[in-house]
Parts: sequence; structure tokens; C-alpha cells
Amino acid sequence: MKIIIVGATGTMGKYLSHEFEKEHEIIRVASKKSDINTDITSVSSIENLFNQIGSFDALLSVAGPTYVGPWKTLTDQMFRKGIEGKMMGQINLVLIGQHYINPKGSFTLISGALTCEPQLNFANASAANGAVEGFVRAAAIELDKGIRINAVSPTVIEDSPQYFPYFPGEIPVTMKQLEYGFRKSLFGANTGEIIKPY
Amino acid sequence: MKIIIVGATGTMGKYLSHEFEKEHEIIRVASKKSDINTDITSVSSIENLFNQIGSFDALLSVAGPTYVGPWKTLTDQMFRKGIEGKMMGQINLVLIGQHYINPKGSFTLISGALTCEPQLNFANASAANGAVEGFVRAAAIELDKGIRINAVSPTVIEDSPQYFPYFPGEIPVTMKQLEYGFRKSLFGANTGEIIKPY
Repeated sequence: MKIIIVGATGTMGKYLSHEFEKEHEIIRVASKKSDINTDITSVSSIENLFNQIGSFDALLSVAGPTYVGPWKTLTDQMFRKGIEGKMMGQINLVLIGQHYINPKGSFTLISGALTCEPQLNFANASAANGAVEGFVRAAAIELDKGIRINAVSPTVIEDSPQYFPYFPGEIPVTMKQLEYGFRKSLFGANTGEIIKPY
Repeated sequence: MKIIIVGATGTMGKYLSHEFEKEHEIIRVASKKSDINTDITSVSSIENLFNQIGSFDALLSVAGPTYVGPWKTLTDQMFRKGIEGKMMGQINLVLIGQHYINPKGSFTLISGALTCEPQLNFANASAANGAVEGFVRAAAIELDKGIRINAVSPTVIEDSPQYFPYFPGEIPVTMKQLEYGFRKSLFGANTGEIIKPY
């Protein structure tokens, strides 16, 4: 299977690339130091990505820049980080990628527990996640030729302990659990699902 | 109670303004033909709105432009209609309005059943609704001084029969049910809730 991993140089992306490359052809995508460097906040950069790759079987995204910071001084401008990054970046990967993906292929996006379990300073991520999840459910009934789409929604990630203080009491998702979440989407038959790998 | 109704000239806004003005002071806001004409896609226009009003007790928004149309040709550009309108329009009403609202005041935004019950042609609304709902949950834990925030999430609206063909089998929410949803948010003690008035 030819799998595109977007956000391949991050904590989640490195782990998933390493696991899935044992049995599949992996194309690593990130803003830099990847197989095909791509700015997912740019439509033309995403178009260029798919033009270079041509057809593929699965796209897996763990790319999710959002704004983290105090609520009282939060502005429209700061909010744009998550809109252009985690939200529209991922949505555009699907809107454009649908014209390149093989029949029976799949898209798997990343959302997160913040959609329904908010934490202080993370309103931008809660909104971006909610948008991604609403989009995934809608896209699932639109995509044809057996093409599927799901989102994986982890809590805080085991290998990102720097975030633990922001998520008091939240049980971290292990890297293996995260991998299982993506496996369910990639190799299962489900579509329009928000997969909680815990 | 001094209540701002944004989207006051639409089907929902007219009804709610008429009901709530029996007992409260209502400020009708819309893009035109309202008490204070406002473009909610513009931060400066929203700032101007609150500067004119000063303090208030409740803001109720039923303003929700989104893009409706075929999936296959859906682009980033079309998607912006719901992002700038129903999503950031409403989010900015809260981010800016929080600095003007009275203690124990409330914000009530509009989302919709499409967040979890998608329909063909409405992916933009599903994403915008999801974002609004994620934001509401996050804002609820950030707002202080007893200020509350909820969203009302109706299905298709009784008085908008032109949309019925797009929502096969969906039981319309009556105008009275819609009013009850907003009453629960305005006069209840709940916060961070997605109110389904059916």
C-alpha cells in the first residue's frame, strides 16, 4: 500500500512512519526535511504535493498546528493558526487529495480529546478539532468509489510529556494505542468515525 | 435584561426577537435593516457594534452563513464562507464581546444537527458547527465572573420549508422548540452545553 504520512517529522509522524514502513511504501511529508516538503496552509503547495505523487492508497495526517495561550487576550489573528493549520490544512488535503486517491483508498486525519474535553489555553484546538470531526462525518457520506475517511482522536500523547502539565488527570495515550487507532482506520472498513484509541 | 440578537432579520432571529421583546430590551443586529448594522465577518465591525452598545446582559446569535453545494467541486475558497461566517463570525462575537458583557451574562451561539448528522452538500456547515461546538465547550471553562456560554443545535427549522428536501427524514424543530432552546441557555444556569431543543 502506498501511504502518505503528513506531519511525518513530528513525534507521532516519526513513530507511525517507522511502524508502517515495515510493510508499506511510505511517503513522508512535512514542512521541511521530508520526502516532499509541503506547506499545508497553502492550497498550491498541497496541489504540488499530489501532482508529484500521483495516485496513492492512503493519506494519514498528524499535522496539527494550533494556538496555545491565555483566553483573555485571544484574538481573531491568533485563532487563525489552528484554522489554517490543523483545520483547513487537513480539510484541503482531503478536498484536493480526493482527485488523486485510488478507489477503496482512505484518509485519516488527526483531531483530539479537546473537542469534548476542553483544557485551559486550548480553545483554538477545541474549535479546530470540532471542525475536523464535523468535516470527517460529512466527507464520509460524500466520498465515492469506496473511499473512506476517519479521524483519530487521542488524548495527550505518551511521547510528548512536555504537554502533561496542561492536561491534568488526563491518561496519556501510548504510542502503540495511537498506532492501533490509525490501523483501524487504514485497514478497517469503517468510515466517518472518530476513533478514540483508548 | 438587555439582549443583543445577532441575525435578527432572519427567520429564527425575527421569531426570537418578537418573543423576547415582550419582557426584555432587545437590540436587533444584522448586516442591514437592523438597529446596528454589523458585518460579523469583520473584526472592526464587531468592535464597532460593542462600542456602540457598551455593556449588555446576553448575546444570542442565529447568524450562520455557510456554503451549500456539490462536494466534488468544493474548494478552499468556497469553504471560507462558513469559516468567516458561522464559525469565526460567532467566535469573534464572543472573543470581543467578553470584554463588554456584564457579570453573570451569557452568550448563546447557533450550531446545528449537521455536526453529527451530515447531509449531502452541507460539509461546510458540518465543519463550522463542529468548530462552534468545540469552541463553546472550551470557552465555558475560560469565561469568569459567572459568564456562561452555550450553543443551540436545532435540526431543520419549521419555518424554513425550502430546506426540507435537503434533510430527508429529519423531523423539523418547531419555532417554539427553538425558543425553548434559547430560553434554557439565557435563563438557565448551564454552561458549555450543546442544547438540542427536541
